[in-house]
Amino acid sequence: MFRQVVMCRWADGASSEVKQSFRDAFEQLRSIPELLDLTWGEDAGHFEGNFDFVAVMDFDDFASARRYVEHPLHQSYVRDHASQAVGERVVVQHDWFPSK
Amino acid sequence: MFRQVVMCRWADGASSEVKQSFRDAFEQLRSIPELLDLTWGEDAGHFEGNFDFVAVMDFDDFASARRYVEHPLHQSYVRDHASQAVGERVVVQHDWFPSK
Repeated sequence: MFRQVVMCRWADGASSEVKQSFRDAFEQLRSIPELLDLTWGEDAGHFEGNFDFVAVMDFDDFASARRYVEHPLHQSYVRDHASQAVGERVVVQHDWFPSK
Repeated sequence: MFRQVVMCRWADGASSEVKQSFRDAFEQLRSIPELLDLTWGEDAGHFEGNFDFVAVMDFDDFASARRYVEHPLHQSYVRDHASQAVGERVVVQHDWFPSK
């Protein structure tokens, strides 16, 4: 499996409408077949300085992850939603081997 | 479930020995009972600017995650290994509900 973890901070001044549109568009990404598993959530607010949002996404391999990026749903998600809602963004990608 | 995702960059100048000690100490954390699931990996290097390391850790709840932090193995991991190996560190914590 190839895992991509993305952590974001909201853009400065992102409105609650912009954030909600982002969440809705993000959920739509589940329908992209290459995305085998997705868990995401917003920071619980226990500690100051945490980022706002994290997504853990699993694909078969790096090639699948690249096809996901090219999918029209992902392209419009980036263009119409992430571009407005997301400020800082950090990523790690790695292969992993589920134990079961 | 309560998830904690931690993303790190290696400290500037961290030697390969320091990094390996960090990896070994990190693997030891699996034996802390509150840590129900752990998947971690190092960035595959496909894209410049990615962080170096990510860990996805699952606990029953926030209280369990706090007990994990207090565990002697975690305390020595922070004091003796993370303090030398880790530069930048970003975190998101959120509740989630496994679908199966």
